Amino acid sequence: MTDALKDLKERLAEIEDYQAIFAVLEWDQQVNMPPEGAEGRGYAIARIAERAHNLSVSEEMIRSLEDAEKSVIGMDADADDVRLVKLCRELLDKEIKVPSDWVSEFAQTTAIAHNVWEEAKAKNDFALFQPHLEKIVDMRRQYAGFFKPYDHIYDPLLHHFDRGLNTADLVEIFSALRPRQVELIRHISSRPQVDDSILHGHFPEKEQWDFGVEVITAFGYDWNRGRLDKAVHPFSTGFNRGDVRITTRIYENLAGSSLFSCMHEAGHALYSMGSAPALARTPLSSNHSMALHESQSRMWENLVGRSKPFWKHYFPKFQSRFRSQLANVNQADFYRAINKVEPSFIRVEADEATYNLHVMLRFEVELALVENRLQVKNLPDYWNTKFNEYFGITPPDNSRGVLQDVHWSAGYIGYFPTYSIGNVISVQLWEAVRKDLPNLDEQIEKAEFKPLLGWLVENIHRHGAKYECQELVKRVTGSKIDPQPYLRYLESKYKDIYGA
Amino acid sequence: MTDALKDLKERLAEIEDYQAIFAVLEWDQQVNMPPEGAEGRGYAIARIAERAHNLSVSEEMIRSLEDAEKSVIGMDADADDVRLVKLCRELLDKEIKVPSDWVSEFAQTTAIAHNVWEEAKAKNDFALFQPHLEKIVDMRRQYAGFFKPYDHIYDPLLHHFDRGLNTADLVEIFSALRPRQVELIRHISSRPQVDDSILHGHFPEKEQWDFGVEVITAFGYDWNRGRLDKAVHPFSTGFNRGDVRITTRIYENLAGSSLFSCMHEAGHALYSMGSAPALARTPLSSNHSMALHESQSRMWENLVGRSKPFWKHYFPKFQSRFRSQLANVNQADFYRAINKVEPSFIRVEADEATYNLHVMLRFEVELALVENRLQVKNLPDYWNTKFNEYFGITPPDNSRGVLQDVHWSAGYIGYFPTYSIGNVISVQLWEAVRKDLPNLDEQIEKAEFKPLLGWLVENIHRHGAKYECQELVKRVTGSKIDPQPYLRYLESKYKDIYGA
Repeated sequence: MTDALKDLKERLAEIEDYQAIFAVLEWDQQVNMPPEGAEGRGYAIARIAERAHNLSVSEEMIRSLEDAEKSVIGMDADADDVRLVKLCRELLDKEIKVPSDWVSEFAQTTAIAHNVWEEAKAKNDFALFQPHLEKIVDMRRQYAGFFKPYDHIYDPLLHHFDRGLNTADLVEIFSALRPRQVELIRHISSRPQVDDSILHGHFPEKEQWDFGVEVITAFGYDWNRGRLDKAVHPFSTGFNRGDVRITTRIYENLAGSSLFSCMHEAGHALYSMGSAPALARTPLSSNHSMALHESQSRMWENLVGRSKPFWKHYFPKFQSRFRSQLANVNQADFYRAINKVEPSFIRVEADEATYNLHVMLRFEVELALVENRLQVKNLPDYWNTKFNEYFGITPPDNSRGVLQDVHWSAGYIGYFPTYSIGNVISVQLWEAVRKDLPNLDEQIEKAEFKPLLGWLVENIHRHGAKYECQELVKRVTGSKIDPQPYLRYLESKYKDIYGA
Repeated sequence: MTDALKDLKERLAEIEDYQAIFAVLEWDQQVNMPPEGAEGRGYAIARIAERAHNLSVSEEMIRSLEDAEKSVIGMDADADDVRLVKLCRELLDKEIKVPSDWVSEFAQTTAIAHNVWEEAKAKNDFALFQPHLEKIVDMRRQYAGFFKPYDHIYDPLLHHFDRGLNTADLVEIFSALRPRQVELIRHISSRPQVDDSILHGHFPEKEQWDFGVEVITAFGYDWNRGRLDKAVHPFSTGFNRGDVRITTRIYENLAGSSLFSCMHEAGHALYSMGSAPALARTPLSSNHSMALHESQSRMWENLVGRSKPFWKHYFPKFQSRFRSQLANVNQADFYRAINKVEPSFIRVEADEATYNLHVMLRFEVELALVENRLQVKNLPDYWNTKFNEYFGITPPDNSRGVLQDVHWSAGYIGYFPTYSIGNVISVQLWEAVRKDLPNLDEQIEKAEFKPLLGWLVENIHRHGAKYECQELVKRVTGSKIDPQPYLRYLESKYKDIYGA
């Protein structure tokens, strides 16, 4: 390694250490922190954000990167180090546009907003959260402003989570998804409805927890490098590849909710755990495309976790844990129940057929907010009206409406679309997996997940953030991001369940 | 406030924020972190330690402090701001002697050593821990070297935890305690032994946990500003006065162990929670004398928690939680059982009569190590020999011997003596409390702890670190630290239990 590269990597390691610390503070805030710790935590989080930012844009970093750029001239363009230098340049050119004061103020704002959101959601009190969200929207508009000129004000926000996607891509992909998904839902609603009452009994917390643990352990989640906790909103976070944590929440009156969230978050965690050790403490281990990340979480949750082969193995185990609740249920009925399609209020509980509509709604709302077509104070009405247009039902309260998601309280405007793009990518990748693993279904029927995970590590996880989503999808599938496989998957799955 | 003071306080707030972050990382390491997170955590902790240190000794800080010193000339010498400036000068003069590289290396060393110690203790494998402890001892000797000339090499280590105590003070106080405590134990061993077999039944974890929570809630521990978790070693830590956490461990075959550790740690936490809000984010809220801190924890644990008035109220409640185990036990027998005096291996489980001997042993060991009279590799033998001299018994293994305490793995050499000084101070303060609260016993008999806590907040807690231990003891009791009240307390208590 050249001296210049060595110097750059030392600087990057310092920034990555601070980002890991930031993540610990946030994890603790969501999992453990007592209510009155919020103010102090806000100060702490703001310090770390400011520090990481200042290091990223320091004179020394700029010079170090310039030297490293010179030192990799002529090297293989696909080498890790060359990719690293390229990514650093992108990150620096972006970071340098954001004033340090903005960074620490935003970190502090969201640290406080998060706790207010929790309270507002619990009390169904949007007015409590409103001023915090107003400030977040204002600051996010300000943030986008640092990147003028842009094609769309939403682009810089989206790039914060996925540097390889543009607002125009989303509009195009959603335009392809929307009519076919609406048509599918219409078809389904014309068919006899599936009975999922068996999922609405009493399912004791401990049994749900243990079953979730059993399943994600089989997936390959490594407990020496992670842990599972309860949180208001399920999430995953990683401090380094030796410490990648996930959370869940458990509703005792609803089977499956916690389980599917465990599988989803474990999907994220497996991606982070699979990153090559050589990428540790560089941005190649942390600046993933969120659409790719969601492709992994949605793959384990849906393509594995809501599939027939999976439940062929696990239904008897699940049934034996909840013997009284599921005594007279057979596997086929259970499979249909967990795949019931129905307009519903909560995104994270939504079936696969309606899920993307929840995302499209949020995308529309976010566009309206950042384009200044919508005031935060009018957001609940706007949400409820739009929700009714999409789903034909109106949320009974804001907790089950506009307050349901954690994202905005954390400043995440521009994140939601990555879920849907993740869905789309997941099926493209799944088709590639199937080609290489012709016995995939039989393996899943035996809870043998090693071949699948091995394939994912080899083709996706180990690369960390080396490739943007379009590039990786192309490398693996030969095609750019394409909604058609996902639509075919949905149509085929639900015509099997609901009839053609 | 002068501009100079304002500038100083802003700089101090930044350092305090980093110290709070350091404490979060350590808390998480001990409570939550999966094993393979240790390496990454080591990097993170080292970064924060180095950053806090660098800020503390920066050119800007030095100038800011000089300006602040000028700006407080002529102000009341006892004003918070004047005391703050004085404390900052002490801290700076100390901190500036320690090289930044040493700070980060030591932080990383102890972060890794902590996990190795946990494993070594679990496996009873001193050799595993040995190289880590060797490095820690070497580095602590190096640290002391930065402070040459010193009266004693142990002084700088002790001052790290208590700036108001010197090795010579310890030698003097221990010289007064040792013969009278040895004499007391000899007297007790000549009397019929107390039967404590009732404490060695099966006491389910959940009931123990709930009872501990009930008691410390009554003490005044504020759950909106704290939480209780399980950890290998009970400890308390505070990130700010809104987030002061404690841990415990539970042995199902031993009643009381978890309870007394809860009371002890809650005693620490109440001190930190009681710090005046005006002192927040300054060293006056965090640089407490550890001897004073231990006086608070030992007071709640022993003077309250092992007293007759306390158990007059709580024994029936305790009995009703463990009905089958304690059916035929009366309050007087129970009181004697929890106050049984017996040479034993584990410091934190030791009775009040033998406790200080455990500390004196550790003090001797630490002196021998830092004076280079003892090599770490010979430590288990040295420990066991000394232990036998003190207690007449030999630890059956290193886990119950030299590996039992967390302190050395965290780099805490010089901490143990503060426990004994805390014991001594606790009784001096208790006599002062009694003067002001003549009905204290009756209040405790009714679990009315508000008057006691109120007195402690008013006379001790709200001052934070404003006064060194000698000064505070003098303010409150009119006397310097004096072992006589403690000795009288011990002799009187145990002659009541064992007969004169």
